[in-house]
Order: sequence, then C-alpha cells, then structure tokens
Amino acid sequence: MPSRSDLANAIRALSMDAVQKAKSGHPGAPMGMADIAEVLWNTHLNHNPSNPDWVNRDRFILSNGHGSMLHYSLLHLSGYDLSIDDLKSFRQLHSKTPGHPEYGYAPGIETTTGPLGQGIANGVGMAIAEKVMGAQFNKPNLEIVDHFTYVFLGDGCMMEGISHEVCSLAGTLGLGKLVAFYDDNGISIDGEVEGWFTDDTQKRFEAYGWQVIPRVNGHDSEELLQAIETAKAESDKPTLVICKTIIGFGSPNKEGKEDCHGAPLGDEEIKLTRERLNWPHAPFEIPADIKDAWDANEKGAASESAWNELFAKYKVAHPELAAEFERRSSNELPANFDEKANKIIADVNEQAQTIASRKASQNSIEAFAAELPEFFGGSADLAGSNLTLWSKAQGISANDASGNYCFYGVREFGMSAIMNGIALHKGLVPFGATFLMFMEYARNAVRMAALMKQRSIFVYTHDSIGLGEDGPTHQPVEQIVSLRSTPNLDTWRPCDSVESAVAWKSAITRKATPSALIFSRQALDHQVRTAAQIADIERGGYILKDSVGTPAIILIATGSEVQMAMDSAEQLGDNVRVVSMPCTAIFDQQSAEYKESVLPNAVRKRVAIEACAKDFWFKYTGFDGAIIGMETFGESAPAADLYKHFGITVDAVVAAAKAL
Amino acid sequence: MPSRSDLANAIRALSMDAVQKAKSGHPGAPMGMADIAEVLWNTHLNHNPSNPDWVNRDRFILSNGHGSMLHYSLLHLSGYDLSIDDLKSFRQLHSKTPGHPEYGYAPGIETTTGPLGQGIANGVGMAIAEKVMGAQFNKPNLEIVDHFTYVFLGDGCMMEGISHEVCSLAGTLGLGKLVAFYDDNGISIDGEVEGWFTDDTQKRFEAYGWQVIPRVNGHDSEELLQAIETAKAESDKPTLVICKTIIGFGSPNKEGKEDCHGAPLGDEEIKLTRERLNWPHAPFEIPADIKDAWDANEKGAASESAWNELFAKYKVAHPELAAEFERRSSNELPANFDEKANKIIADVNEQAQTIASRKASQNSIEAFAAELPEFFGGSADLAGSNLTLWSKAQGISANDASGNYCFYGVREFGMSAIMNGIALHKGLVPFGATFLMFMEYARNAVRMAALMKQRSIFVYTHDSIGLGEDGPTHQPVEQIVSLRSTPNLDTWRPCDSVESAVAWKSAITRKATPSALIFSRQALDHQVRTAAQIADIERGGYILKDSVGTPAIILIATGSEVQMAMDSAEQLGDNVRVVSMPCTAIFDQQSAEYKESVLPNAVRKRVAIEACAKDFWFKYTGFDGAIIGMETFGESAPAADLYKHFGITVDAVVAAAKAL
Repeated sequence: MPSRSDLANAIRALSMDAVQKAKSGHPGAPMGMADIAEVLWNTHLNHNPSNPDWVNRDRFILSNGHGSMLHYSLLHLSGYDLSIDDLKSFRQLHSKTPGHPEYGYAPGIETTTGPLGQGIANGVGMAIAEKVMGAQFNKPNLEIVDHFTYVFLGDGCMMEGISHEVCSLAGTLGLGKLVAFYDDNGISIDGEVEGWFTDDTQKRFEAYGWQVIPRVNGHDSEELLQAIETAKAESDKPTLVICKTIIGFGSPNKEGKEDCHGAPLGDEEIKLTRERLNWPHAPFEIPADIKDAWDANEKGAASESAWNELFAKYKVAHPELAAEFERRSSNELPANFDEKANKIIADVNEQAQTIASRKASQNSIEAFAAELPEFFGGSADLAGSNLTLWSKAQGISANDASGNYCFYGVREFGMSAIMNGIALHKGLVPFGATFLMFMEYARNAVRMAALMKQRSIFVYTHDSIGLGEDGPTHQPVEQIVSLRSTPNLDTWRPCDSVESAVAWKSAITRKATPSALIFSRQALDHQVRTAAQIADIERGGYILKDSVGTPAIILIATGSEVQMAMDSAEQLGDNVRVVSMPCTAIFDQQSAEYKESVLPNAVRKRVAIEACAKDFWFKYTGFDGAIIGMETFGESAPAADLYKHFGITVDAVVAAAKAL
Repeated sequence: MPSRSDLANAIRALSMDAVQKAKSGHPGAPMGMADIAEVLWNTHLNHNPSNPDWVNRDRFILSNGHGSMLHYSLLHLSGYDLSIDDLKSFRQLHSKTPGHPEYGYAPGIETTTGPLGQGIANGVGMAIAEKVMGAQFNKPNLEIVDHFTYVFLGDGCMMEGISHEVCSLAGTLGLGKLVAFYDDNGISIDGEVEGWFTDDTQKRFEAYGWQVIPRVNGHDSEELLQAIETAKAESDKPTLVICKTIIGFGSPNKEGKEDCHGAPLGDEEIKLTRERLNWPHAPFEIPADIKDAWDANEKGAASESAWNELFAKYKVAHPELAAEFERRSSNELPANFDEKANKIIADVNEQAQTIASRKASQNSIEAFAAELPEFFGGSADLAGSNLTLWSKAQGISANDASGNYCFYGVREFGMSAIMNGIALHKGLVPFGATFLMFMEYARNAVRMAALMKQRSIFVYTHDSIGLGEDGPTHQPVEQIVSLRSTPNLDTWRPCDSVESAVAWKSAITRKATPSALIFSRQALDHQVRTAAQIADIERGGYILKDSVGTPAIILIATGSEVQMAMDSAEQLGDNVRVVSMPCTAIFDQQSAEYKESVLPNAVRKRVAIEACAKDFWFKYTGFDGAIIGMETFGESAPAADLYKHFGITVDAVVAAAKAL
C-alpha cells in the first residue's frame, strides 16, 4: 500500500517531468500543493472520473492556474480520460493539456484559470449556483443539489483586488460549501512576498465573515484531513484553510525559492529531486500500485449511482421539478422558447414605445423572465439605474437563496467573474449589469466568458455622451470598440425597444457566446418596421429604410444615432439607404449574399454615425466614406448640448453625405 | 462668530442648491460629510488657496467623486478661484464645475475621481511620492517635503477590489502621512448595504497594518478633531478614520436613505432642509461672516511663506539638490535631455542587437535612468519577465523610501492608479509593467491617465501569440485595439531595439500624454536604417524599405511582424514599400503631406500585418487591401507553431499581396 507521500510524489514527478519536457511551465506550485491535493482528492472530493459532467459532483478549481500540471496530474491519476501521452504533450498545439487549464480541453477542468483571482471568483459563482439551485429544487430528504466547491489559490490571487470583491460577498452570502486552500508559501515571482505583501490574511478573511483555519502544515496529511473536516462541518460560512507550504517541495536546491516557480527545474535538479523524494521511477512512469491507489472510478461510480437513486426518488415525488432540473442542468431552453420570444418581440413592436433602451431592456427582462425560471439577474449596485429589477425579482441572502437576483454591491469585476462561474455550473442563466464605462473594471472577465464560450449576459447602460452631466469619467467612447474586437462576443447596441427585445432573445438563445447588451440612458424613438425587417434584426444589421433604386449613399448607424440617420435621410432625399447595425459580430457572420444586399460593395459613399470612437467604422466605410463620431473624451453637460458640441448632429451627417 | 455647524451647513446649502439648479447630481455625500470636511479643512488642511500649485501643500482627494459639490463648496468657501457663478454652472458645458471633479478644470482639484476606488489609489500614489521625494531630498531640519494626503471615501470605494490592492500596499509601505476618512453611512445605490456589504472594515484595515480609528461620530466636531490628531501622530502607519454619518444629513424626509444619493432633493424638501438646518439664506448666498470664517487665504499665505523661508535655507545649504527639486517638481526634463536621448538611440543603433524588445526596453531603461533621477519604476510582480529592473534600481520599503522602484505585488490596477497619483504629485516619472494581457485588469486607470493628461508610462511585455506556451489567457489579441482607441494615449509596438529606445524617449518627453509601450517576449531582428529614418521613427510611422519608383504594394507592419514584412518584400520584388508603424496615434498627428508621403492615397494595394485583432487595420488598408492578423483567441504552443497555425507567415503575406 503506497503511503500518502508516495501518492503526492506522483504529482510532483509528473509535474516536474512534463514541465521539463515542454521546456516551459510552472513546477513550483504543483510540487508545493501536492500533499494538499492528495488529501483532498483521495479522501474528500466527490466526483466520478468516468462522468465529468455528473451534475452533483464537487467542483474543483485551481485559481493559481499556472500550476496546471497539478490539475492534469490529478485528472490522469484519478482516472479521467487524460492519458500519459496527453501529459507528455503538455503545452503543445492541439493537446488536451495547454499551459493553463482551459475549459473544454481536458475533462474535469471546470473553468479556465490563469488570470489571477478569477478562479476563486468562478468558485464563488459555482457556490452561489449550488446554493440557489439547492434552495430552488431541494426537498426534505431529497437534497439533489448538494456539493462542495473547492478552490486552490496562491499569493497572486490573494493580492488581486478581485479576491476582495468576491470573498467579501461570499462571506455576506454565507457560502458554507465553499472551501478555499491558500498556498501560503511566501514566494511570488519577484521573490519573498514580505517586501510587498504583509497582510494578516487570517484577520482579513475573518473580517469578511469566513471561517479561517490558520497555520495548517500543507505537508502534513493529518493536519490537512482535520482542516477539511472542520471546513465541511461549518455550513454557514465559507472556509479558508491557510496552508503553510514550501514551493517546489522536494527540489533540494530550488525548493522555497522563486527559481522553481515558472521554469523547468533542469535535468540535473530533477535527478536530485528524484533521489530526495525517493522516487526512482522513470519520467512519466507511475507504478501500478500507486496508480491503483489513486484511481477514483470505482468510488466515483458508486457516488454517482447513489445520487442517481436519490434523483429517481425525487423524480417520483416531484416529476415536474425533476424535469425542470434536468432541462436546466443541461442548458436546454424551455419548449417553444423561440416562438414565445418572437411573441414577446411582436408585442413590443405593437406597443411602439419611445423609451430609453435601458427601460426597453427592463421590459424585456420582465417578459423573458416569465418564460425562463433559470434567469438569474443582478447589478453592481446600480439596479435603479441599470433597470435590472423586474416584478418577480427576489434577492438572495445567506438565509434564503431561493431567489433569482444577486445584489452584487459595487463589484463589477467580481460580479462578472461570478457570473462566469454560475454559467459554468449550469442551471442558471446569469445576467449582470453596470454602466458601460465600468465594464472596464470587469473587462478580463468578459473576455474569459468569450474564451470559455459561456452564456454570461452583460448588461451595460449609460452608453455614450448621451448620459450627459456625469461627464467624461462616465461617458463611454472607446469601450464599445474593445467589446467588438473580442472574439466570440456579441455586442449589441439597439436603437429602440424592438431591437432591445431581439438583443435579449439573441443573448439567451446563443448558448456558446456571451453577449454585451448596451443600452441608453435617454429615450429613443420607436422605429416602424415590417415583419421581415423585424426578423432581419437577428442578422445583426439590416436595411431599416431603403432608397428608391440603387442607393447613392448609405447611412449606417447604431443605437441612439439611428434616429439621426433617419432624420438625415429624410433631408437628403429618396436615394439614401439607412442601415441599422445593432450587432456587427453577428452581421459579419451572415452569408456574403446577405451582406452584399445590405452593403453593396459598389456603393462606397457611406456615412457611419455612432457617438463612440470613430475608427472602428473604417471597416464598413473604407476610405471613401465618412464617419461621424467621437475622437476625444466627453464632457459634463446636458446630453443635447454635448451632441451639438461634439458635432454629432443631423446637420453634420447631411453635410458629410453631401460632401461625398 | 459662526459655529462649526453653520460652517458645515454652508457646504450643505451650496451642494443641495447647485444639484437642484443643475437638475442632476449627488447631494447625499456632501451633506453627510460636511462636518468632517469642515473640521479637516478649517483646522488641519495645510494649503494656500491663492497658490493651488504650492509644492508642499497637503493633498485632498474626494475618492467618492460623485460628491463633487462637497469639494467645489470647499474650494469656493476657502477662497480658491472658484466663484459662486462657477457653482451655479455646476454640470454645464465649459464650466469649471463638471459633474465629477475633473483634474485641470477647477483649481485645487488634485485628481479626477468618479470611477470608484481610484481616488484612494491616487492618494496612495501621492503618499508614496511624498515619502520618496522626502527620502531623496529632505535634510535634518530642512524637511522641504512634508505634507499629508487626505482622502475621503465611501462604501463604493470600500467594495471595489482596487481598495484592497492599494490599501494593502499602503500598509506594507508604512505610509504614515496618508489619512483616509471612510463615510460609513450604511447606504449605497441599491439601498442599505447590509444585504451586500458586511465587512468588518476595522478588522480588514488592521489586517493591512493600518491604524484604524473606529466608530467616530461624523457629525461631532470634537470627536473628529481628536481623530485627526491621533491620525497625524502615527507616523509609521496610514490611518483610517471610520466615520459614522447620515447620508443627506439635514434633509428631514430623505436623510439616511438612498433617495438623496444621486438626485436633487426637490424644491419642497430643500425648503424643509433649510428650516431644519436653520439656514435662512437664499440659494447661493453665503453670509459674510461665514465666508470670512472659511477663508483660508491668510493662513495659507503664511504657511507657504514659512515653507518658502525653509526652502531658501535649503537652497543655501544644498544648492544643487534645490535646483533638482525645483526642476523635478515642475516636471522639467534635465538640460539637453533631447540631445542625450538621441545619443542613447544612436548607441543602440550602433550595437545593432537582435534581442527581445522587452530586453531592448530594459537596455533603454538602464540608459535613460542614468539621465533621469526622477525615473520611478515598478512591476506588478513580474520584474524578471517584464525586465524592469536596472543596475541602479532600488526598491522602496517602509523603512527606506529613498529608492526609485516599487515592487507593486500582483496588483495591476492598483499599480496603474498609484502611478497616476505619483505623476499628479510631481517630482517622479513613474513607469510600471505587467503582461499586455493584464493591462485589462488595470484598463480604467490607463484611461484615467489619458483623461488627466498624465505622463504615466505603462510597460507591457508578452505582446501577442509570440509569447507561446502560456496560451490564450495570456496571449493578447484585442488589447492593443483597446489601447489605440483611447484618446490621448500613445501606444507603441516597436519592431526592434532602435524603435524601442525611441518609444521610451517619446514616452518620457511627451509630458501631457501617457504611453503604453508594448514589447515582445521573443527576439526581434535589428533593422538597418539611415539617420533620417531613425529620426522619422518619432513620427509614429515611416518608410523602412522603399520601393523603386511608385510602390505597387505597401506592406504595413508593427513589432514582431516588421521582419515578416521585410522578408515578404524581399520575395515580392523591388516595387514593394514596407512601412513600419510603431505608434499610429502619433502618425495620425503628422501633417497631411507627411502621411501622404508614407501612405499615398493613390496606392490602395496595401497589406497590414500584425499578430493582433485584424479589424483595426481597415483604417489604413480600406476595402481594397488585405490584413494578416488574428480573428480568434490564441492557443498554447511554442510560438513558431502558433504563427504557422494562425497563418501569420511570409507565405501568407506574399499570397495576400499577389492576390491584390
């Protein structure tokens, strides 16, 4: 029977060997956290390697994602579909084992980590999802949602601001099934952290309302076992286990030093480490008894099977809830959703309201929420400005998580990364809002949603100088360009309530793409459309008003500037076409024929109008058109004064068109 | 003699009246913090309203910038050049009193605030600058740098992650002259904060190593006076004064509620508030005795005069240091800097090294640092990867701040906003580094530098898929577009060590523009240039290799893709021009003639090559060119494999050029 040390050393060996073979990577963290991982995975983690999608599995997240070989080693050893050959191709093209854990590459990777602090944020999101789903579905003695979320994190995560945002909220929400292990090794890339990081982390987390288990020897299995039991016994608070570890544990000349953090140990040092660890086996060779001791398939199958029995009972007792649970857990939309959505859009069209698109968005939320019990809203302390509350919205709290809304507080980045965790968990469709400007605080989480192909719906109001008096710190200029340049992100800037409803439908139905829905503070005129035009909104760009005959000029606009284009066309005559372009990403995906029908290549006299950074529009105007937009930051003044001041007016559009 | 309450009520009246007149704004915070402000400004703040630029003034920052009328009221009342008419035009175009405090608009505004959490971060930066300048210049009994930095902040700032980053670092660095006042009113925009914010803030800040003075009644002058004295007496730690306040204090029906946070009180409520506060005066009318009691000009002139005497003594004792202090405090570069910089560039050219541009950057830092004692470097825990250390770099610490480098820890956003505070303070030229990807964590601080016209130098290495194995979470694609779309920001992506040196020169000499300097992880070939070409680098774009006769095709490239363009031109023949375009922002500012000489309008066959998001380049290629770049996220693999995988190769460029 191999000892726990032997089992942990298997991780160390695989990690140092794979990094060495790849000639790049991070051996320090895997070697330092191997004992913690061994105890957690072999004694507590409830998972089934043969079914990584088992809905009630414990979630495991490596927030210090550079230590990816730790996670790959664990997956391989415990019996996931990740072979020794996969480990040998660590960090190579088309492998399942990229440099950082990437969601969708290796089975068992719950989220993509690497950008520090976001893993723990995703974990908070998963723990929220577990708590909410549990509150919505569990019945006495039929607790079908009942799993832990375990997170490993390092000094980097602890220093990042997002750790404050999400751990503070985790405390407030009493996430008792969240257990985090802090790899307190005293080393970051610049060396010993005492020069730049002297927090009393125990005190800090107690201030957040966490249970903290301090000074655990991260290389002592008994202490670790005890700590995990204490963590699991506390159901009202999240737990932080502060593990004192030695980075690169086992490397005679590099352990405890920065040297082993982000570079291969080197052949000679690896040889010495093998001796020190008493690990005589060749690289990538795991003795059968060690592999057997690690294998979690049998235990996992038993766990899942027990849960399946529980769920079968649940199904008998609560057939409708069970069906809903299965539907939601597999990210399926309700039956006939498309039809219902189109009805909602038709109703909005019929009402023909001239309202702010943020208000139109709220109306859409109200309508879609009635069809979508998995809707889970929120705002970073701007509910009344973002208009994210609806009649049935109910905030969650530590004591009652059966609601469908999170008051995230002033935590844009935390909210966004938490939403990604909620989406990854499955069962809820998260949306969360802030002002478009403060997307910037959360920007990398938006990117992570796109990279992970998660349906996080980011709602951004107050979209331009049109917000008026709050001034340049609040007026977006270049933010929309940043969003539109992001691969696999749908960025919508609707021009009225109909386009707003279509944007919401698109965001809900496009399951592998996050959406950024951008809305105005000020009222926007309703546009009259045919049924065919309404259908075309989903193509991202379409002819809102056509010319008589071939267009002499095409005006292209989005959002609040569409009415300006319509007014300009009115003045310019009937040879002018107006194209509304609420979502360029989706328009770009249309067939060449459709795109040519909207923007014929031969018609080069084009004017793009958008109260945002101009340069983006060269893509649609080329050199022979004109662009009416922003080239500077905004100013503080009433919106009408600003449009005039910055020359975004019907007169300017007409003049530009005539000059072509 | 007016009472302290009368003096504070003057702030309340001006604030509620100005918000009412503007029909928008935030009366709650000014009315809630009026007593704290009154005590601080009338008893402790060392400033001279007639000279807002006095170098040794205390700095005052309103981190909860939406409460701008508090600051404007203080400036008006204490005698700055901000008239009652200025207050009456609150939030109007071309006024000195925009919706949020904007640096450069009203005298006495030390930084632009509004984006929450960044004001306290700027304050930490100013306190670091004070400590470093003091350590570099002060002599026994001649402490010419000796001022406090006072920051007001609210619940929003406390929830934002950046407050964790900067307050943690402030504790580590022992910033004893930083005093923050927390407006603990229990209210944020969504209502009573207890639903989303339950931190024990005292404990949290004690965990950072701060002195915390808890439970101060924010409406009791005696308690406040005592607290400020205790704060100033502690020289080894920053101090947080936790002030319990009532938001909208004085409004009978709205105080203590969210209602008064972000909207005018309304005429009727204002009338009632006047009665409750016993403030019978008309809107914008301040009785003479109250104005007199507030006026700080006399005291301020005396303070400055005393300092002037001290500085005169210093000048006699240390004439050279005094001259350096004056030069640095006024943001002047050393004599002949331009000449010296050109010599550095010429030397780099002569060495003709083929090295990573991050290494070239380090060489530039080494060379420029020798000429620039005000250089103040740093990195967010990536010194060894960003290559930001130089031979004379010396980290600052709590006990010794005489150095020129800050180990910022893993705190990208905090670092960047701190750099802005350092730049605003004057005396140091800050640069700080991270990977280009993690610019996103700090993105809004970069924007704030541009908005405030501050010379913060942001160094970003690991600039593309060229970083290789770390994979898509670390490989920038769209980040450079976000930077280039930002008004008043110079974004450089140099192609070799010569362009790298020019980029550094530009960043140092362009005093009203921040720069983002983007460098590669991998080696880049040295390019051969004439002296005229080297001079043209400063124009942002120039002909690196010209065609024989009018170019049939122009290849445009930046950074690591310039050599690819050169190799492609080699294959394509002698009618091909290669344009290197390291800084599009500066190129766009050149004369029409120069731009036409580089990119003649008639030559439409252009191929842009950059291993980043493609769409940006339509601006320079129009519809009739081609763009070789990225349309998706990256992957984890060795760099060479990735360039091939994503089709960014000489073959692809040649094929695209031939297809035109």
